[in-house]
Amino acid sequence: MFDPVEKLKEYIRHPSVSTDSNFKAGMRGAQEFVAGLLASLGFAIEVVPTAKHPIVLARRGGDPKWPQVIIYGHYDVQPADPLNLWKSAPFEPTEREGRLWGRGAADNKGPLMVHIAAVARLLERDPQLPLRITFMIEGEEEMGSPSFPAFLEKYAPELRKADFVFLSDTGSVSEQQITITCGLRGLMLCDVEVTSSRSDLHSGLHGGAIRNPIQAVAELCASLHTPDGRVNIPGFYDDVLDVSDWERAELAKLGQSEEQYREFLGVPAFHVAPGFTPFEATRFQPTLEFNGIGGGYQGEGTKTVIPSKAFVKMSCRLVPNQTPEKIRELVYGAIRARMPKDVTYRIVDQHDGCPYVVVPPGRSNTPADQSPVLAKAFRAVDTAVTEVFGRAPLYLREGGSVPIIGEIKRVLGLDSVLLGLFLPEDNLHAPNESFNLNVMRKGIAASEKILAALARG
Amino acid sequence: MFDPVEKLKEYIRHPSVSTDSNFKAGMRGAQEFVAGLLASLGFAIEVVPTAKHPIVLARRGGDPKWPQVIIYGHYDVQPADPLNLWKSAPFEPTEREGRLWGRGAADNKGPLMVHIAAVARLLERDPQLPLRITFMIEGEEEMGSPSFPAFLEKYAPELRKADFVFLSDTGSVSEQQITITCGLRGLMLCDVEVTSSRSDLHSGLHGGAIRNPIQAVAELCASLHTPDGRVNIPGFYDDVLDVSDWERAELAKLGQSEEQYREFLGVPAFHVAPGFTPFEATRFQPTLEFNGIGGGYQGEGTKTVIPSKAFVKMSCRLVPNQTPEKIRELVYGAIRARMPKDVTYRIVDQHDGCPYVVVPPGRSNTPADQSPVLAKAFRAVDTAVTEVFGRAPLYLREGGSVPIIGEIKRVLGLDSVLLGLFLPEDNLHAPNESFNLNVMRKGIAASEKILAALARG
Repeated sequence: MFDPVEKLKEYIRHPSVSTDSNFKAGMRGAQEFVAGLLASLGFAIEVVPTAKHPIVLARRGGDPKWPQVIIYGHYDVQPADPLNLWKSAPFEPTEREGRLWGRGAADNKGPLMVHIAAVARLLERDPQLPLRITFMIEGEEEMGSPSFPAFLEKYAPELRKADFVFLSDTGSVSEQQITITCGLRGLMLCDVEVTSSRSDLHSGLHGGAIRNPIQAVAELCASLHTPDGRVNIPGFYDDVLDVSDWERAELAKLGQSEEQYREFLGVPAFHVAPGFTPFEATRFQPTLEFNGIGGGYQGEGTKTVIPSKAFVKMSCRLVPNQTPEKIRELVYGAIRARMPKDVTYRIVDQHDGCPYVVVPPGRSNTPADQSPVLAKAFRAVDTAVTEVFGRAPLYLREGGSVPIIGEIKRVLGLDSVLLGLFLPEDNLHAPNESFNLNVMRKGIAASEKILAALARG
Repeated sequence: MFDPVEKLKEYIRHPSVSTDSNFKAGMRGAQEFVAGLLASLGFAIEVVPTAKHPIVLARRGGDPKWPQVIIYGHYDVQPADPLNLWKSAPFEPTEREGRLWGRGAADNKGPLMVHIAAVARLLERDPQLPLRITFMIEGEEEMGSPSFPAFLEKYAPELRKADFVFLSDTGSVSEQQITITCGLRGLMLCDVEVTSSRSDLHSGLHGGAIRNPIQAVAELCASLHTPDGRVNIPGFYDDVLDVSDWERAELAKLGQSEEQYREFLGVPAFHVAPGFTPFEATRFQPTLEFNGIGGGYQGEGTKTVIPSKAFVKMSCRLVPNQTPEKIRELVYGAIRARMPKDVTYRIVDQHDGCPYVVVPPGRSNTPADQSPVLAKAFRAVDTAVTEVFGRAPLYLREGGSVPIIGEIKRVLGLDSVLLGLFLPEDNLHAPNESFNLNVMRKGIAASEKILAALARG
């Protein structure tokens, strides 16, 4: 068996920044490294070309009756700048304080290495392990996975035969409290651009004759929430999944303090829809946020202009069982109905992503038709995490979005088991990223137990 | 008598751009030119230093029983760029098509030269002309006249002994229809900056817990107008002067087409407070406009952020007898009362200016205590314009602001007679500025008649 920490160092040394064309060699190096590592474990490698960075498909076949797991990961990393804030060079991995420091250590090279190492151990012990395993490792995650949906569609006939997807690209609360992410919010984004007059106007000569486009945008935005903090669009909440008692109870186990959270955010007070704590609202409720607004003169001092145009960029976070398509229709319908006739406007589509939820076995709302292999995987995760980390995992929905998880569900019909292996202090997407080597060791042990339990059938 | 067109050319050749320190020589040249010209006519010159560009005070005294007029003008001009759009060099004045082309030809060197030439003719014919004349020519008008109020305060004991102020720094409808501007709107400007969280937040992790500052700004802005287009602040309209029937009738004489105005603005429809035409609303009604708004991500594509801050820049145009002080208090009061408690905010004072109105003699609302000299001036203007231009002038309030006129009224207690000498096609503040030489000739004749009538007593 290889030394996973040394292999992780080697992996991190390939500076695989997918968004920066200066890092082509690093991208290729990381892709070849991970493909070579899996080939050395006996996997059949297919490098699937995309418009930007290829996807590595590594297959271990076997008896079609064996259970089949797809392990997802990505070999690309965030840019490392600002470089001057790093205590050691981002692409020269360094061990100190029980951590391995380097860009990608936690997102996602370390967690992926956990599962590769677990598979390596299992196969070393039992080369005939009755488990079909497919690694699916992309190189565009930090770009928003633009090539991934088409890849899924193309490989769907094969991939949808798997039982579930296993991955570690989410976080846990702490080393002591491993978290299994059971739900993610979806997204629906758009811009609204309002035009009033043909060109900017003198506010003295013409002020009083027309509706200012900033006013039109403000009136639209103000109409989209009720005073109590809900989204004010008929039908918006129709498909929102009820929160189960077990989910609230699970969340309460976190023991977070609202006052500490308020101080962390630095707001005078929360503004939360009725019936939810801030912790619940960010996970279980959909939102409509304004991500940007602009129009007219934004410089120092004053300019007495009536601008010709103003715009707002908005995004909805969606929860199960909302769909981006229906929410887009409802939001656009509200915009069209509310826009006054004395201005013109344009709605610009932006991207979207499906929300996702999976219910572990034995909960009040576990689907009756849950796949037995998935249920077994959840039970194996629970047992393994409890044994290795000393405490049962928490099963939480999160407020963020990992659009590929919803996409995998939509295209392949597969659920995902999201074992959180990075921690709040790991500095993802920031200088001085690191991966806790204790978590790495324990993660390998847990992953090994989980995969072994699946293989046992 | 000097040749006024040749003198105007000489004046324009001094590139007196007050806002650009590269034009110091041009500023000094224009100031010395105009002071020298008035000295040659027998005026006593005082160059009053200010923080930026001095004010030229040129006095012709005499018997204290003589009427006294202050003639206002400014020797600074707008920047000339973009230079490539000029058909002839902006500071090399050129005659063609009956016009003199050059930066400052219409704003304000030509119109000021009209009055200087009229005074020259009068004094040539009658060196003992029983009229006291003070030219008050500033060099910071295109910067917003920052030094002017302090100058007025300092010279008030002398200046307020004058009977009225005479100037040509407003426009007329056309060469055939000279306009006397009888009112100007005032200004009150401020910014509102709203802060929600300490820093920008991930809209997935935290969306649903707090009020987005863009939402807070939008809700504030949306609250500030009623659906029918009035300003929604209690007391805002309390001091608004009723529109007189003669004013509506005078405005109707313009014969403007609403449809042509709508097409000029390029809006799908007007948005005008009830009871007013667009032409009336822009002159007789106050406004609250949003001049700029900003917050969050304004670039291409998307960024799923909850911004920490958002702001709006707003301005009110005021009409008589509103005051900037009271309107500031009312607007700030509304902002304070309406801002939700879950955000923090800051109101930033910007500048302001008083509205202004003067009523020509003989109208239904002419003040009973109107100064006889002012009334005589208005009658003289009416007669002179009718004789020289062939049609009686129109007496109109305008929607724009010339803060110094309100300031002169406030500090000196003096009304102004604003004889419009530039035309819509003169391209003020734009490339290819010009002054119509026919208007110049007629203007000199009219000004001479007006001043002569005053001197006759």
